[in-house]
Amino acid sequence: MIKAGIIGGTGYAGQELVRLLLMHPNVEISFISSSTHDGENYSKLFMNYYNILNIKCIEAPYNIVDQGIDVLFIALPHNHSSKMLTREILEKLKIIDLSADFRLSNVDTYNQWYNSTHPSPDLVDSAVYGLCELNREAIKKANLIANPGCYTTCSILSLAPLLIKSLIDLDSIMIDAKSGITGAGKNLSQATHYAECNENMNSYNPIGHRHIPEIEENLSLLAGQTIKLSFVPHLMPVNRGILTTIYCKPNQPINYDMIREAFTELYSEEKFVRILPKGISAETKWVKGSNYMDIGMFHDERTNRIILTSALDNLIKGAAGQAVQNMNIMFGLKEEIGLDQISMFPI
Amino acid sequence: MIKAGIIGGTGYAGQELVRLLLMHPNVEISFISSSTHDGENYSKLFMNYYNILNIKCIEAPYNIVDQGIDVLFIALPHNHSSKMLTREILEKLKIIDLSADFRLSNVDTYNQWYNSTHPSPDLVDSAVYGLCELNREAIKKANLIANPGCYTTCSILSLAPLLIKSLIDLDSIMIDAKSGITGAGKNLSQATHYAECNENMNSYNPIGHRHIPEIEENLSLLAGQTIKLSFVPHLMPVNRGILTTIYCKPNQPINYDMIREAFTELYSEEKFVRILPKGISAETKWVKGSNYMDIGMFHDERTNRIILTSALDNLIKGAAGQAVQNMNIMFGLKEEIGLDQISMFPI
Amino acid sequence: MIKAGIIGGTGYAGQELVRLLLMHPNVEISFISSSTHDGENYSKLFMNYYNILNIKCIEAPYNIVDQGIDVLFIALPHNHSSKMLTREILEKLKIIDLSADFRLSNVDTYNQWYNSTHPSPDLVDSAVYGLCELNREAIKKANLIANPGCYTTCSILSLAPLLIKSLIDLDSIMIDAKSGITGAGKNLSQATHYAECNENMNSYNPIGHRHIPEIEENLSLLAGQTIKLSFVPHLMPVNRGILTTIYCKPNQPINYDMIREAFTELYSEEKFVRILPKGISAETKWVKGSNYMDIGMFHDERTNRIILTSALDNLIKGAAGQAVQNMNIMFGLKEEIGLDQISMFPI
Amino acid sequence: MIKAGIIGGTGYAGQELVRLLLMHPNVEISFISSSTHDGENYSKLFMNYYNILNIKCIEAPYNIVDQGIDVLFIALPHNHSSKMLTREILEKLKIIDLSADFRLSNVDTYNQWYNSTHPSPDLVDSAVYGLCELNREAIKKANLIANPGCYTTCSILSLAPLLIKSLIDLDSIMIDAKSGITGAGKNLSQATHYAECNENMNSYNPIGHRHIPEIEENLSLLAGQTIKLSFVPHLMPVNRGILTTIYCKPNQPINYDMIREAFTELYSEEKFVRILPKGISAETKWVKGSNYMDIGMFHDERTNRIILTSALDNLIKGAAGQAVQNMNIMFGLKEEIGLDQISMFPI
Repeated sequence: MIKAGIIGGTGYAGQELVRLLLMHPNVEISFISSSTHDGENYSKLFMNYYNILNIKCIEAPYNIVDQGIDVLFIALPHNHSSKMLTREILEKLKIIDLSADFRLSNVDTYNQWYNSTHPSPDLVDSAVYGLCELNREAIKKANLIANPGCYTTCSILSLAPLLIKSLIDLDSIMIDAKSGITGAGKNLSQATHYAECNENMNSYNPIGHRHIPEIEENLSLLAGQTIKLSFVPHLMPVNRGILTTIYCKPNQPINYDMIREAFTELYSEEKFVRILPKGISAETKWVKGSNYMDIGMFHDERTNRIILTSALDNLIKGAAGQAVQNMNIMFGLKEEIGLDQISMFPI
Repeated sequence: MIKAGIIGGTGYAGQELVRLLLMHPNVEISFISSSTHDGENYSKLFMNYYNILNIKCIEAPYNIVDQGIDVLFIALPHNHSSKMLTREILEKLKIIDLSADFRLSNVDTYNQWYNSTHPSPDLVDSAVYGLCELNREAIKKANLIANPGCYTTCSILSLAPLLIKSLIDLDSIMIDAKSGITGAGKNLSQATHYAECNENMNSYNPIGHRHIPEIEENLSLLAGQTIKLSFVPHLMPVNRGILTTIYCKPNQPINYDMIREAFTELYSEEKFVRILPKGISAETKWVKGSNYMDIGMFHDERTNRIILTSALDNLIKGAAGQAVQNMNIMFGLKEEIGLDQISMFPI
Repeated sequence: MIKAGIIGGTGYAGQELVRLLLMHPNVEISFISSSTHDGENYSKLFMNYYNILNIKCIEAPYNIVDQGIDVLFIALPHNHSSKMLTREILEKLKIIDLSADFRLSNVDTYNQWYNSTHPSPDLVDSAVYGLCELNREAIKKANLIANPGCYTTCSILSLAPLLIKSLIDLDSIMIDAKSGITGAGKNLSQATHYAECNENMNSYNPIGHRHIPEIEENLSLLAGQTIKLSFVPHLMPVNRGILTTIYCKPNQPINYDMIREAFTELYSEEKFVRILPKGISAETKWVKGSNYMDIGMFHDERTNRIILTSALDNLIKGAAGQAVQNMNIMFGLKEEIGLDQISMFPI
Repeated sequence: MIKAGIIGGTGYAGQELVRLLLMHPNVEISFISSSTHDGENYSKLFMNYYNILNIKCIEAPYNIVDQGIDVLFIALPHNHSSKMLTREILEKLKIIDLSADFRLSNVDTYNQWYNSTHPSPDLVDSAVYGLCELNREAIKKANLIANPGCYTTCSILSLAPLLIKSLIDLDSIMIDAKSGITGAGKNLSQATHYAECNENMNSYNPIGHRHIPEIEENLSLLAGQTIKLSFVPHLMPVNRGILTTIYCKPNQPINYDMIREAFTELYSEEKFVRILPKGISAETKWVKGSNYMDIGMFHDERTNRIILTSALDNLIKGAAGQAVQNMNIMFGLKEEIGLDQISMFPI
């Protein structure tokens, strides 16, 4: 059994991680820490665990390497996980960090977009970007995983095949992303007060969202060239799910089959990335509650544009599910163990 | 492996049954029939199964006993399952019927409330009412299970302890039940058209809902006396869940501990019925996606009334989950096998 | 033109009041105060007024009688309006208080249910309970109106006809009330965080809600006897609306026509209370956005129970609309002026 | 008083038109026709009008010019209004057609995108495209108004200033449009069945939506050049509202002030088009229930893209409200008469 510790287990992603690990046949949860609920029974906070899980939240342990755990999941706001990690910890434990702290290779970029000073710039090089389908080999050997963001997982996996095959004009990418409200987390805010967002649709931060450098860095790596793109996030009145609609122009004469082939080549052996049949758009309802991501592809011959639609569950493939998938890879387990839930419908 | 056939697998309850059986370690689905989608790939109808389940819907087989199955689930509208069953089938197969056809022991009552003529009145005596927590012993030996309705499961399990202990005035029961919209099924109707029910709250059929005789029959059995009660169903704009608020008067001097003891005595060993801590009301969010039912109990000393609040997932404990639970009991399996999903939050 | 001041104009009820007064042909808004948004432009807080209303929020004026206003609306939390009012103010201004401070005639009852000490017990006698359809004559002469609560308006108007005609057993009343989430106000709380209440159904405070004494006092007055009743509020994932389902037993042989006649007698001349046709239940969608309240009546002959279903918009007939209706009555205007909005559908 | 007839008054747009005309001080409704509800009382279909409007639906009158009406609104599916209109009717009545039949000047384009044969191609030239803010002068003199679609109103008004001032690369326009579910109308369909679309997000018809030629024709007119663009519609689980996010590239060195000036120049005197303050995105909640349309403008200096976000109520400014605005213009009334509702919040 893999012994897992969870730092920050009372946010939405942390809670989803607890649920997935509880149902994972090879994992045992050693502790759940919470700065705000220290000493409280976890099932009192989340009554779905009532009579099922009997564990008290603790403070984050000081001597993390002496807890007898094999893997540490950290689900804290940015700047917090990097503050608590040291080289010694990285040598003794496998770490999967769900925050943004280790996602950007360039510390200056991090400092600028997150408007802060990175607490542990020297550890950044040790991290592997945990986008499983693209970085599997590096993940196998990593001790520190930077688990990708929800918007970024959806955006990067959608565009990767087109960039790897050099099919598109790199200056043409526009990503229109729609997120459910759990994407904004569990902290109270006016924007996520029920009556303020129910029955409403809006974009927010249309020119400066923090997931932009993460998307651009990884797509630039795939393209072998610096990419700049537009990314506009929207808040939609649903609990879960991300839907991205991506617009770009081909850089050569193209047709639907060429597009599809790029996706098939990259993903045909991937369990969790599903290439939708021709003519079918992604819908969040078919992936919510699962670790799957669906991609639909269109070539608009009239305007010669490529349009991609993709969907995933922001708390699973966009956070806790991908964290478990990373753990499975790191520990040499079959990648889908504990992640075989079929999306529940209707939810 | 238990081989299971499903008649009527493309409604919401049928689809949920498919999902639960697919994740059940001891079951193999032999066929799924659908009168409206004969020949279509199941995963084309329900894209959550895309790349996961590759099976075509068939017409309901004529010679059902020759299909090599061990158990047959029927998820058809009322009057249909009773039309296709015969004594021969009952002798050779275990049948779990999710419709109302065999839930009422009195055929005249059925004919009156369902405004029809029961197609197989002679089979009614063979059926066992599959409310697992109350009828477990009979279910073990049954060949034909009448799987209870969603409203009824929630209502009967809530009131059972008070009736068994004879704590309440039998003429005082008022059940106010709220259902999500999947309770109205997959068939299109104006009442379930999005813009007609979203942001709306309403009661419907406040004095003649068909679940009334089912609730009254089973509660009367427990009380040893004929019970008549009020039951008012409501439609609420959520996908899943039933919440019942039950009002009744004690028939003797009473206090909270006496009420709680009645529940503990009946349910303390039950995995799927959870007695909530004092002061806590049931909420559908903590049971949705699971086979659990939660009950909260209140004694209003000021008015000397007992108030119960209960919640379950109408498609799981109120339909497909209870059907699987019945199957587990019938086949001597551990009752919770394949039903250990923890409620996902937020959903 | 009636000059109106509004104290506490940035909550949901206060904002709705601003909207109704802006569209009222006989009213001019003199000021809007807000303790938290002093100095901010109102249309920056509520962008629906962008380019329409150009007014800055002020602090609540100290010398309220010197502001040149005719009527003062107060939409503050309980204990606040009573703190700022004096006998002098009452003599010089007409006051409509949307809080609970002056709704209960018995100060001890107030102190007990609101767990506080009433700041101005000597003013309580000056207040008239502003339930327009029942207290019209007193309202005409009043200087201080205690504007009723949302749950209470719906409950009292529903039961009044049965009590006036002495048709029911006074010990049999159970009120099951469902509220949209604006009922919980604009203050942030975990219970009203989108992902916590969306897709959820729950009851809260099932034996001690503060609207109980207000309902009981007014119904007791109508019945000429002390009434105690059960009132269980529920939170439902919609923005607006209250739906009450009321259960009671007749105290004499009764039929539907007798029930209907009691309602017709009391309400046939009332514009804003609509008696629904036989067999029709109230639905919030038909009253939302309007000052109307709908009542449906049922006699269940099988169990000999009376069941009432009623609906109103909690922010209009349940708060700001009734406040305007009270103002119209106090100033001798036609009661429906400024309140003739037809419910928008679908909303 | 203007006497108005309504053909097709029982769809969502028709019903909204009835509501707006009832509250319009200069209009009297002469008749409401409905092919499916002939003979039924309108308030039985839409209980918001209960006790308010007492009128029976009729069949569409054969001799429409003899009905004593001044204006005829037609809210039928495409191909129907063009079937019933004749040159004689156009000479005697003012017609406002809410369908697509007369929106495209090129009949072949219509036949191709609507996959049909236009029933009255010779009348197409008589129609004026009723986008009030852009075609006011022509509308004043028109007898036949083609009332624009909801998506198109939002898209064209958003882009018009940039095209008039020739600020953008015409080959760079991508419109990502999100619609509430009333946009799909009142007819039952699986896609609009509550449990199928609630909590879901999806795009549909991403390369062939019928509003594309309407948008392209009108933008091409403004640009003086043929424009082809991408337009991807999405269905979001809200009742009302359209939100468009538009991406394009400038064709010259540009800054925010230049963009803003283009909008100010065109719209500063327009009541119903509101230019949002710098940095503010449009949200549907601030316009729902009103005839307003909000536009937010962004210049992303990092990528040198222009991003526009716009919102309107699809049934008001996107249908019935604009129809009333057109009527006001045609009859020489003040343009905002009957349209001064402030958006209700929260709805």
